[in-house]
Amino acid sequence: MTESSPGTTLDDAIPTDSLDDPTAAPAPTGVPPSQHHGYVQDKDAYLKRLRRIEGQVRGIHRMVDEDTYCIDVLTQISAITKALQAVSLGLLEDHLGHCVVHAAQESDEAGAAKVREASAAIARLVRS
Amino acid sequence: MTESSPGTTLDDAIPTDSLDDPTAAPAPTGVPPSQHHGYVQDKDAYLKRLRRIEGQVRGIHRMVDEDTYCIDVLTQISAITKALQAVSLGLLEDHLGHCVVHAAQESDEAGAAKVREASAAIARLVRS
Amino acid sequence: MTESSPGTTLDDAIPTDSLDDPTAAPAPTGVPPSQHHGYVQDKDAYLKRLRRIEGQVRGIHRMVDEDTYCIDVLTQISAITKALQAVSLGLLEDHLGHCVVHAAQESDEAGAAKVREASAAIARLVRS
Amino acid sequence: MTESSPGTTLDDAIPTDSLDDPTAAPAPTGVPPSQHHGYVQDKDAYLKRLRRIEGQVRGIHRMVDEDTYCIDVLTQISAITKALQAVSLGLLEDHLGHCVVHAAQESDEAGAAKVREASAAIARLVRS
Repeated sequence: MTESSPGTTLDDAIPTDSLDDPTAAPAPTGVPPSQHHGYVQDKDAYLKRLRRIEGQVRGIHRMVDEDTYCIDVLTQISAITKALQAVSLGLLEDHLGHCVVHAAQESDEAGAAKVREASAAIARLVRS
Repeated sequence: MTESSPGTTLDDAIPTDSLDDPTAAPAPTGVPPSQHHGYVQDKDAYLKRLRRIEGQVRGIHRMVDEDTYCIDVLTQISAITKALQAVSLGLLEDHLGHCVVHAAQESDEAGAAKVREASAAIARLVRS
Repeated sequence: MTESSPGTTLDDAIPTDSLDDPTAAPAPTGVPPSQHHGYVQDKDAYLKRLRRIEGQVRGIHRMVDEDTYCIDVLTQISAITKALQAVSLGLLEDHLGHCVVHAAQESDEAGAAKVREASAAIARLVRS
Repeated sequence: MTESSPGTTLDDAIPTDSLDDPTAAPAPTGVPPSQHHGYVQDKDAYLKRLRRIEGQVRGIHRMVDEDTYCIDVLTQISAITKALQAVSLGLLEDHLGHCVVHAAQESDEAGAAKVREASAAIARLVRS
């Protein structure tokens, strides 16, 4: 998938019609369509946001290095945390909308497994 | 429960088995799939936990009324917040595993709508 | 602060022995000021808010009991968590403004001890 | 007090009167003691931690670029959020222990102003 052209979208890499192919191995955990990462379509936007966050962290490093007033540093860190949270919530929505939905459509078991996994990620997100 | 509860609307409105072929294999849990709220099976446990949380809030009221040391009150509030969070995460996992999975199995559109709704709830949870 | 010399330390601003001066205007509850819990002056407001939160938790119990839709229950829990958080932040500000400030005015050691304690409470609050 | 107290660390490290002594090694920003940012003494440790966090953000950028599985990306983001939170809590404790304590020792008004400012920062931190 990574080698594909930049314009690659979901359906290019792995033919979705394999889903309807009765001879295809059923995929409870078994790869293809349900393994498409939800964020693939928004990848450029995510990369841009992460680059910006990286710059914000570098900015805080500079603030501390220049003895910026504590409270101003804290304000900036809160802004970064919010930005990271927004990325997480975006990735999670994409994940639910793609990986979890596709798994549910494959089988109850595959859906249940993905839900368990997603729920653990949500718990980590809520507690972080 | 559904027969007697006056608050019930959902299970009345849409007979769940009409959604599926009645000859189809039953859902893993043997309950009508898409319309049960995820938490129904754990309802008693949730009610017990909520009753306990209510008691904890009453306990904080008493602590403040008796001029308990601020830090001890804060510690108790943190404990309640964690308990509420655990209830939320449980309800959410049940919701994803039932409502969202079943919606995804009904149609892509139904799945997408439930995912949007769940994602908004997750965002509220993360930000609260 | 502005009038004081830059080197001003503890004992200049507020003579600590005024705390023990029997002719000084008595503190509202007649206990040494540094022992006043910060929230004492807002106690009625806190009690009212806690009573309302207790009612909100009872409301969630009822919602679950009546099989209310999961997402609506989650929304209500998020509201309670926010309300509890607001109480915590209020108590904490009162605590810093009274207990911590008074401890700092008593001695560096007393101030440092209160800061350590408050910081641990803040960490619990942030992580809950 | 600061000269004799065994628990004192700050004033040992940076003698307050050296600040006004033109021949003394200048304090980083050359400001009065109460204006010293709490984190100055741990500055190198903070800089190191921030550099590591910056690397972690870059790592997430790479993960997304290489189409890493969503859940694994989320786990890494949660780790970064926790690391940033730990930096915030550290800075805050340093701030309370230095800026707020010193302000309280200067005057009630100075203390109250710093407490208000710190409380607003804590609220942002809790809500981020």
